[in-house]
Amino acid sequence: MNEGQKMYELCERLFPICRSITGNGVRQSFELLQEEIPDIVIHISEVKSGTRVLDWTIPNEWNIRDAFIETPDGRRICEFKKNNLHVLHYSVPVDKKVSLPELKEHLTTLKSQPELIPYASSYYKERWGFCISYNELMSLPEGEYRVFIDSTLSPGALTYGEILIPGRVKDEVMFSSYVCHPSMANNECSGPSLITALARYIDSIPHRYYSYRLVLAPETIGALTYISRNLEYLQKYVKAAFNLTCVGDDRTYSMVRSRYGDTLADKVLSNVLKYHYPEFHDYPYTARGSDERQYQAPGVDIPMVCFCRSKYHVFPEYHTSADNLNFISPVGLQGSFDVMKKVTDALEYNRHYQVTTLGEPQLGRRGMVPTMSSKETYRETLALKDLIAYADGRNDLVDISNIIDHPVDELIPLVYELLDKKLFRVV
Amino acid sequence: MNEGQKMYELCERLFPICRSITGNGVRQSFELLQEEIPDIVIHISEVKSGTRVLDWTIPNEWNIRDAFIETPDGRRICEFKKNNLHVLHYSVPVDKKVSLPELKEHLTTLKSQPELIPYASSYYKERWGFCISYNELMSLPEGEYRVFIDSTLSPGALTYGEILIPGRVKDEVMFSSYVCHPSMANNECSGPSLITALARYIDSIPHRYYSYRLVLAPETIGALTYISRNLEYLQKYVKAAFNLTCVGDDRTYSMVRSRYGDTLADKVLSNVLKYHYPEFHDYPYTARGSDERQYQAPGVDIPMVCFCRSKYHVFPEYHTSADNLNFISPVGLQGSFDVMKKVTDALEYNRHYQVTTLGEPQLGRRGMVPTMSSKETYRETLALKDLIAYADGRNDLVDISNIIDHPVDELIPLVYELLDKKLFRVV
Amino acid sequence: MNEGQKMYELCERLFPICRSITGNGVRQSFELLQEEIPDIVIHISEVKSGTRVLDWTIPNEWNIRDAFIETPDGRRICEFKKNNLHVLHYSVPVDKKVSLPELKEHLTTLKSQPELIPYASSYYKERWGFCISYNELMSLPEGEYRVFIDSTLSPGALTYGEILIPGRVKDEVMFSSYVCHPSMANNECSGPSLITALARYIDSIPHRYYSYRLVLAPETIGALTYISRNLEYLQKYVKAAFNLTCVGDDRTYSMVRSRYGDTLADKVLSNVLKYHYPEFHDYPYTARGSDERQYQAPGVDIPMVCFCRSKYHVFPEYHTSADNLNFISPVGLQGSFDVMKKVTDALEYNRHYQVTTLGEPQLGRRGMVPTMSSKETYRETLALKDLIAYADGRNDLVDISNIIDHPVDELIPLVYELLDKKLFRVV
Repeated sequence: MNEGQKMYELCERLFPICRSITGNGVRQSFELLQEEIPDIVIHISEVKSGTRVLDWTIPNEWNIRDAFIETPDGRRICEFKKNNLHVLHYSVPVDKKVSLPELKEHLTTLKSQPELIPYASSYYKERWGFCISYNELMSLPEGEYRVFIDSTLSPGALTYGEILIPGRVKDEVMFSSYVCHPSMANNECSGPSLITALARYIDSIPHRYYSYRLVLAPETIGALTYISRNLEYLQKYVKAAFNLTCVGDDRTYSMVRSRYGDTLADKVLSNVLKYHYPEFHDYPYTARGSDERQYQAPGVDIPMVCFCRSKYHVFPEYHTSADNLNFISPVGLQGSFDVMKKVTDALEYNRHYQVTTLGEPQLGRRGMVPTMSSKETYRETLALKDLIAYADGRNDLVDISNIIDHPVDELIPLVYELLDKKLFRVV
Repeated sequence: MNEGQKMYELCERLFPICRSITGNGVRQSFELLQEEIPDIVIHISEVKSGTRVLDWTIPNEWNIRDAFIETPDGRRICEFKKNNLHVLHYSVPVDKKVSLPELKEHLTTLKSQPELIPYASSYYKERWGFCISYNELMSLPEGEYRVFIDSTLSPGALTYGEILIPGRVKDEVMFSSYVCHPSMANNECSGPSLITALARYIDSIPHRYYSYRLVLAPETIGALTYISRNLEYLQKYVKAAFNLTCVGDDRTYSMVRSRYGDTLADKVLSNVLKYHYPEFHDYPYTARGSDERQYQAPGVDIPMVCFCRSKYHVFPEYHTSADNLNFISPVGLQGSFDVMKKVTDALEYNRHYQVTTLGEPQLGRRGMVPTMSSKETYRETLALKDLIAYADGRNDLVDISNIIDHPVDELIPLVYELLDKKLFRVV
Repeated sequence: MNEGQKMYELCERLFPICRSITGNGVRQSFELLQEEIPDIVIHISEVKSGTRVLDWTIPNEWNIRDAFIETPDGRRICEFKKNNLHVLHYSVPVDKKVSLPELKEHLTTLKSQPELIPYASSYYKERWGFCISYNELMSLPEGEYRVFIDSTLSPGALTYGEILIPGRVKDEVMFSSYVCHPSMANNECSGPSLITALARYIDSIPHRYYSYRLVLAPETIGALTYISRNLEYLQKYVKAAFNLTCVGDDRTYSMVRSRYGDTLADKVLSNVLKYHYPEFHDYPYTARGSDERQYQAPGVDIPMVCFCRSKYHVFPEYHTSADNLNFISPVGLQGSFDVMKKVTDALEYNRHYQVTTLGEPQLGRRGMVPTMSSKETYRETLALKDLIAYADGRNDLVDISNIIDHPVDELIPLVYELLDKKLFRVV
């Protein structure tokens, strides 16, 4: 079974669970994720409600068992058990009768996509509410409605997980995704699934250069919590970081640049995408929207970019009931895995190399180019010659790839050979 | 009455006066300008003829009472009293009879615009002459002509004026225009008129940050004189300077960049123009032609750009009798005032700001963004979030405006609020 | 007789000689070149076979007297004496009978250009072979063939030549070309011919600023030899270097940039080409292929660009029998000479200049601009004013040419006048 298929099946198991920024849905999701990678430890942390994290405070823990609306004629609508998007996330408990006008003040709908249930939340202000398709909203008759939400909002904890895979150096590559979204497949069963596949891949790399950190936390408040507890270490050791979200559909590839678009993470991801998916969307930081907002905030400055297939905010299914298991696919997930694998490989071999000869090395006597020269032989081995020409110690491998316009993954085997023949040394 | 109307009426009063680089026309113009802003002092300086100013020498003072040509049949043409462009400015006195061929050696005309009287001058070489439309020139019969110029060219002084409006710091913003052009409306009754309107506006700003300097002098020799007397101070304190010329027509907006296009003045003016008048003309320094030539000369290096509506040298009416009061308008003048007002406001608030939180501040609990999050809420307050995202101390407000692609005048109220809520501090 | 005609006639004399990277053909060619410039010494060096030069070793010397193939029916084909491209260069001697299949293993042909004899060589691996047009190859009958090559490959020397023309400073401009190609006209009788014409021109410049170095060596191994013997001096004194190859056809102009495209040589050549031949091809270093490969190799870093008309590897006649005397012309050679003359002139006057006045100098009283100013006079002398405006000591003359968008050769006489009038000084 390929990684795409494995990831898709994991998404199927994660999808039904009602996750939020705190609560048992998050814990249950971590159990599934740990089952998926039994040989790699996901370290789970719990941080108490009320804990100050930077400018924020961890809210009470929210858990919900049921929710619905009863119409004047006794039908149940907006049933939580049918689709957990129907409840405004973080709703306080309620059980009362309300008139239609009063009910409407508590309903979120989406007129522009009248068939779909929108996703909404109110983490930091106590209210109750439901989400309903515009068509259904329009069909509601006057009369008295019963609103029922069986939830608890009380002191508990925020839950996050991290995977640490050591390499030859303490310098780190970091991946992050989040575990706070309810039943939406691309945003966000896909990101945690990709994290498990990447963990397996990284764990399998022999003689890893970098150490790797893979973090799963609730969006925003979880990232802030993680930063507040790890900032100094992250700033010292993380050399490139990738936030993974909406990585399961088939449509396109996207990256959101870091604040100035100039980190190692920007350089490597844009290089991989431009050679393998030249039609990819290259968004500036002003299009940000996920945890890169916290990791790239002024003073935090972790060198993070965001990687998506269809980007959040942009694809029509975003934050609606249409972001379901039909919207993502094994092929879509596999494509994202392939990109991150190439990114990882590029980082592992992204050293500064210096050719050891003055003038061109004589490649012919080493069997690396033909010994007979005719009209067409020179250009056959051009990537090799170009790689050597720019191995002056000034460029890392990705720089050279960009300069000579040749994909970095095709340069890696050449670097091997040049190191082996002592024609290259690492600077 | 709006500023545009006031400025236009001032142009009407300035228009008939025969100004040149010296003489009573300049003094008379300063009287009108001072009447226009009775509460703000225009400091007048007089510098004697023969004074060396840098590589130049202040010429004798020129005054003229009358001039005309009498045709063989006794008609008067080229009458100074009908249009003061008819005399070559700085003409020495003359009263004699000449043949048509000899006369023609003293006539300046404009074949490409045969209806118009051109404007010409000979400040530094003594000669006499008249300016005449090509059509009229072609109609002149053979015969004896009387040429009469009742002028004096003798030791006197060059006159310039300056307005100084202090702010909280000694650092200055400077505006300049010139007072040496005879009856032409755009070039140059409009510039001095705009200077008076700006003086009123600047004087009205509470808690001004910058000090302001507004200079009116004859073009070239006046700028050189001003520089020779003030260079050290200007170099120390002027942070942005704007030469204002041809600011009264309705057609377009133009800027002429500083020598390398990289000063604060370039940055602010280009930002204001691109957001409010995106079709503006952005000329390089090689298109210069007014006093920016002196202020931006090597070694002088005052950070000056030039602001016009239709640029000198470019609009067809330039330096002809068609540059009259019909060519400018209250609306045209008001537009230029609006640009300079926005430029002034942008400079006043163009600090480096730093967000005071690590990670994003929690805007919801401060009432700055909605507390309920649904599909469309995130982007509603995007300018605020983008402003915060780039408030890392590295960028001034205009930099941030350029990066997040949002007009600086719309950011100023957000900066207020962020400072007020202690989420921003000035670096 | 113009230089183009002289160069063409020299190409006619060089063309028939069988040159290779060593041997008597090279020596004979140097004799012809020396005859062409009797007043300028070409210093000849010989370096023994077996000498280690950087990563390479000078091979045995190759000389050849005759070569041919005898067909089964007794005809002679691939006759060296008819076209010296017919023999694989550096072939070891052979005289034996072979079957057609065995023969074919020793034949180089060019299916895509079936009429043409390709050029091929095997300098560093001993083998024998012939080159043959595809059409002729297809016509060969089965049977026994006699292959005959009367060559010697034995210890001798590699030969190179250099011309040194001193100037006022030890800093140098360097030109190089090569002398290792057999009967091909553009590649490479044209380059050595241009070297002789340039030597004559440089020798005629009064008060030369730079010293000049013109080097002719076999490609690759000769350049490596030259570098190994002169590296320290070249690195210290060579400020701009130009490799000249394929400079005799009429089609286009090309330059191949240095490794980062940012040397003085890049700046000057691209400036001359863009103003005089705006359609020129501007290739990056990845399109390199001649001795710039060695001079620009990491650690060697001589600031060299390559100049061609039609670039090697690109024109269809390249490395075939179609690169003959009909492919080049006196006009083509003259054009290349004109470019290199302009490059030389630009380098000679490419100082940093500083205007000696504060503010604009008064050009009128010096007779440099009209003393009467009217609508059209300002722009007449704009290049002069723009030159002064950017003479702030920060820019060299080529920088100014690029900024003010005016060809450098038209600025040189203005610089003369400004220096003469003490308005400019050299920084």
